[in-house]
Amino acid sequence: MKKAKENIENRSVCPIACTLDLVGDKWSLIIIRDMMYLGKSTYNEFLNSKEGISTNILNDRLVMLTEVGLINYTGTAKRKKYTLTKKGLKLKPVLEAISLFGFKYFTGDKEQLKNIKRVLNL
Amino acid sequence: MKKAKENIENRSVCPIACTLDLVGDKWSLIIIRDMMYLGKSTYNEFLNSKEGISTNILNDRLVMLTEVGLINYTGTAKRKKYTLTKKGLKLKPVLEAISLFGFKYFTGDKEQLKNIKRVLNL
Repeated sequence: MKKAKENIENRSVCPIACTLDLVGDKWSLIIIRDMMYLGKSTYNEFLNSKEGISTNILNDRLVMLTEVGLINYTGTAKRKKYTLTKKGLKLKPVLEAISLFGFKYFTGDKEQLKNIKRVLNL
Repeated sequence: MKKAKENIENRSVCPIACTLDLVGDKWSLIIIRDMMYLGKSTYNEFLNSKEGISTNILNDRLVMLTEVGLINYTGTAKRKKYTLTKKGLKLKPVLEAISLFGFKYFTGDKEQLKNIKRVLNL
């Protein structure tokens, strides 16, 4: 089931640039957040997240994240269940740092934020 | 000289999504890396980074990063000198986490990586 190719072209040898070549966009880390913290694993679950990802972007990202070895799946077609690979799980410190910055600079509904903090174990 | 407006529309109240609304793209964190670790501060210095940012994307990102309060500048037109704001500097843990992931999963020229590690204090 694994089909990591990891042969995307990197812009430079800088490890920051190389990582951003994989997940430097508005949506990849949202899907990974859904899997890491919210227990989501199916196409429809990702599609129903509050941020409102479009179907074509979701399709595109799921293929890309699988190809670069960050996620994996079992099942076929619409029954695919996605999980994070060992490599994908290593993005946890990245998501944590991003969420701590977010907690500092964005204020939302207090009750929702409390729930998010609980889910993120912060 | 400061002109932060910080009124971009957030997709949700999730602090991860809100942060990605600001810097969730391939280039913003490259410019911030240039300022944070490589002592760069001018348009031409950013333009000459190895990753080869295009002039229109660089212009766009410098305006956006200024508007959301992550960077600031002194001087006018082509003599602008950019610096990170206090808020921009708070992205350091994000860049550190991203670079640690990169060091684990990408292998480049060993001498270059050693230099990068030295610059990043890793």
